[in-house]
Amino acid sequence: MASPELNVIVYGLGAIGGTYAFFLSRSQSVSLSVIARSNYDAVKKNGMKMQSLGLGKHSFQAKHVFKSAAEAGEKLSYDYVICAHKALNQDAAINDIKSLISPQTIIVIAQNGVGNEDPFRVRYPENSIVSCAIWIGADQPRPGEFVTRNREHTDLGLFPNPEIDAALERSRVETFAALLKEGGLSVSLEENIQIRKWEKVVCNILWNPISAITQQNMGVPFLESSEEAEAFGKALMLDVIAVARKSGVPLDDSLADKYIAFTKSLGSFQPSMLHDLKAGMPLEIDVIIGAPMQKARQLGMEVPSLRAVYAPVSALNGKLTILGA
Amino acid sequence: MASPELNVIVYGLGAIGGTYAFFLSRSQSVSLSVIARSNYDAVKKNGMKMQSLGLGKHSFQAKHVFKSAAEAGEKLSYDYVICAHKALNQDAAINDIKSLISPQTIIVIAQNGVGNEDPFRVRYPENSIVSCAIWIGADQPRPGEFVTRNREHTDLGLFPNPEIDAALERSRVETFAALLKEGGLSVSLEENIQIRKWEKVVCNILWNPISAITQQNMGVPFLESSEEAEAFGKALMLDVIAVARKSGVPLDDSLADKYIAFTKSLGSFQPSMLHDLKAGMPLEIDVIIGAPMQKARQLGMEVPSLRAVYAPVSALNGKLTILGA
Repeated sequence: MASPELNVIVYGLGAIGGTYAFFLSRSQSVSLSVIARSNYDAVKKNGMKMQSLGLGKHSFQAKHVFKSAAEAGEKLSYDYVICAHKALNQDAAINDIKSLISPQTIIVIAQNGVGNEDPFRVRYPENSIVSCAIWIGADQPRPGEFVTRNREHTDLGLFPNPEIDAALERSRVETFAALLKEGGLSVSLEENIQIRKWEKVVCNILWNPISAITQQNMGVPFLESSEEAEAFGKALMLDVIAVARKSGVPLDDSLADKYIAFTKSLGSFQPSMLHDLKAGMPLEIDVIIGAPMQKARQLGMEVPSLRAVYAPVSALNGKLTILGA
Repeated sequence: MASPELNVIVYGLGAIGGTYAFFLSRSQSVSLSVIARSNYDAVKKNGMKMQSLGLGKHSFQAKHVFKSAAEAGEKLSYDYVICAHKALNQDAAINDIKSLISPQTIIVIAQNGVGNEDPFRVRYPENSIVSCAIWIGADQPRPGEFVTRNREHTDLGLFPNPEIDAALERSRVETFAALLKEGGLSVSLEENIQIRKWEKVVCNILWNPISAITQQNMGVPFLESSEEAEAFGKALMLDVIAVARKSGVPLDDSLADKYIAFTKSLGSFQPSMLHDLKAGMPLEIDVIIGAPMQKARQLGMEVPSLRAVYAPVSALNGKLTILGA
């Protein structure tokens, strides 16, 4: 790319934020900043390490490592702000990034779940929003060290802003896709990113809440645990697929069988929500289970299987939040 | 009562077995034997203690304390065998009591749940079976020491045996009710005990599996944990009520609201399944959740909320069983 350097900042340097930072650091067109919080000292001192399944081992560093959004906002203005924090305290995070946002800034939401664009749009109505479905299993075994466990791929697309010229929005999302591709990440630019985001939630709804309430790995350990396990998992996905469809996102029921087969093929694995539960950390309920549940409520739909995981997982999380307080 | 002494034996001297032993020990018409297993040494040496909410503190002892059913069967023959063991390994227990059973022996099933009579009937087709709905919250804080936490009440009735003269069966169940009453227990002799047993399962289905999957006390802590909690609890009970009704047990849907209100009135409490889960003990799934689930399957019914607790609790239990092996 012959375009001038773009200021890109990653907010939330967890496993996904770190992986995005790695790919962006490899693009000649990017001047990269990161906001590190719990891992600031390690990243500032030693830089970052990446063990990419596709690209091997690398050391890299951002041009600027900041401790906070406030500090980052004083230093520079940004073309792209990648929000890769966990979707837990969205309101606080959305308020926290205000110093990074000018009317021209493009906000990239690199999070699990659905419905996470709305509060960003409400708070920053003038901005373009790019949303992602991230198909990357990643960990941060030590501060600033990132490891991916599967092929690194991202689907992305616009959360269209009717106040902005469509061609301009289009060029903004294409530029962002190009930056990631230049860094070596597999990227699909989607006409309707909501399809891919809801597809991922259908898969997450099978993996995350069930592993939390069974305190057990997902895959074969659950799916073969009783004569009703697979039927329950399928019914749960079909509830979410129905909500998606009624919300205008055209998913097919066959997705449920596809994900059952895929999940079985993985054997036994620990979904992120089980990991968080074991660590006594709050669970990413809102965007994975809460948003479909809320949509169902708004649409007056009966979703007994979805409700049957929403209620206990919320109770589990409430207990963790109380314990953590 | 002027009737001759009846040989009555309690098999399974846990909290419920001990409470039954206490009331039977106070009947002049009973010659009481007990089969103690884990608490044999304490009971043999020190006798038993009862702290009854209705009748205060008492020490008592059975005429015979046995270590095993085999030993008990060599010594005496029995008019009534009270099966008060946990409904976990039913087949093993049903086989174990064979030395206690003659064709005249009346089998009393003093267990939670529904469907527990069938395997006894298959194994002992000549015998009368009395079944109970036990509304007693009891503990055994130390071996041989029993404490009740609420008014001690039992509903009981026949599991009718078409091979036996109805008047004879009637006299057998009336005699057993009279023995317990003579000892001071509040007893209702029911025309159709299945109604009361299924009612208790409707209540148990709200309390036990939800407390297991939320790892949290039942009552207000769950029912007010999210905007869907109460609706989920109610839907779960309505599923079981529908199964009962289709199985020929006439329960009314209003039971669900009644138990929601009752459960709220109790504040916060730990159901037995949560207690067992925390202790790493196997969960009493089969008769509380498994039997309604199996009935639903046989009847071709859709019970999404029931299935949504059956599957994860079975998975939880499988994990415990594996850990315990």
